Amino acid sequence: MTTLYGYFRSSAAYRVRIVLNLKGLAFEQVPVNLVKGEQRSETFRAHNPQGLVPALVTDDGTTLTQSLAICEYLDELHPSPALLPLEPAERARVRALAQLVACEIHPLNNLRVLKYLVNELKLDDEAKLAWYRHWVTGGFDALEAMLSREAGSGDFCHGDTPTLADVCLVPQVFNAERFECDLSAYPRIQRIVANCRALDAFHQASPEEQPDAG
Amino acid sequence: MTTLYGYFRSSAAYRVRIVLNLKGLAFEQVPVNLVKGEQRSETFRAHNPQGLVPALVTDDGTTLTQSLAICEYLDELHPSPALLPLEPAERARVRALAQLVACEIHPLNNLRVLKYLVNELKLDDEAKLAWYRHWVTGGFDALEAMLSREAGSGDFCHGDTPTLADVCLVPQVFNAERFECDLSAYPRIQRIVANCRALDAFHQASPEEQPDAG
Repeated sequence: MTTLYGYFRSSAAYRVRIVLNLKGLAFEQVPVNLVKGEQRSETFRAHNPQGLVPALVTDDGTTLTQSLAICEYLDELHPSPALLPLEPAERARVRALAQLVACEIHPLNNLRVLKYLVNELKLDDEAKLAWYRHWVTGGFDALEAMLSREAGSGDFCHGDTPTLADVCLVPQVFNAERFECDLSAYPRIQRIVANCRALDAFHQASPEEQPDAG
Repeated sequence: MTTLYGYFRSSAAYRVRIVLNLKGLAFEQVPVNLVKGEQRSETFRAHNPQGLVPALVTDDGTTLTQSLAICEYLDELHPSPALLPLEPAERARVRALAQLVACEIHPLNNLRVLKYLVNELKLDDEAKLAWYRHWVTGGFDALEAMLSREAGSGDFCHGDTPTLADVCLVPQVFNAERFECDLSAYPRIQRIVANCRALDAFHQASPEEQPDAG
């Protein structure tokens, strides 16, 4: 059985849950409580020296890390439904949209970074929220522009079926909503996210549906 | 002719230069001076609404963004020499090592983030350096552990030829050296980087060899 080490609110684990669901793959979940610091335990670091979730342990005991690498692995082993188009320039567009979230927004706003801002830099709540919103705004401004003006966009980020880009977008929007970011300037993003959320694979992957939600 | 919009010191542009060189592809460079803020100009944003380098404009005028997406695009169109192994779990390992740099270290330490620390959060030089080194140390600790204990490692991050992981590692080490990070705890990383630097494709992609270096 495939085992996912994750945390209900981790955006990166959320991405992998969506992909496992889209592919119709059964998996067992082992919660790693990030707030309690369980990701830094010796036990977990034996699986992943990065001390980060998600980690996916496959049937044969191989541990895979980094959410986008895991998603592409699952897509290569279980090609249908496809997370990427066939044509190289279109694949590059989907990966770029995914990475705009995964490399430009999320890394700046995850729990370990927010903790550094508060514990080391002594930022108050207002300054922490301003930081959070600054990176969401910059990233979503760009994403909305790309989704609005590029021909590849459809009901989803690329075309009319979910791709790796939507897999990254939905957890980021969930997170932005949690930090009460104003998303009214992003109608295209909102429409796409609504289309995703209407699908079981996305709904069942959402944080509130996980065993460790609390 | 393929055109690369970049900046000599940008780690992300550096990655793409390495791949273009490894593949033996001719390209024209258009420097975008990040220190002067040229990436925020209307002219550049017409190419890339993200206001980030690199952007690659292909022969047919398509603009591609996000360095890892560009690298995989080039690898798909020009498969030899390969940037990724053939076997899915090995591909996932290489992508994870690349993303450990590209999603966990680099996004926290690039110029726009350091500028925010200084201009908005009023951090002094010491606190800025501590921030920089904190994310390099965490990331390189994990990377050194993975490279040392995982069977896939060789003269390069994976096996005995350069992959996408080395393409990300070398610019990150260049950057860490510029910020005078102590790398003595990372012998395996250092050995791999020395092997990369001995190759023309890496050497010719290095910042000091670029037309806008100064």
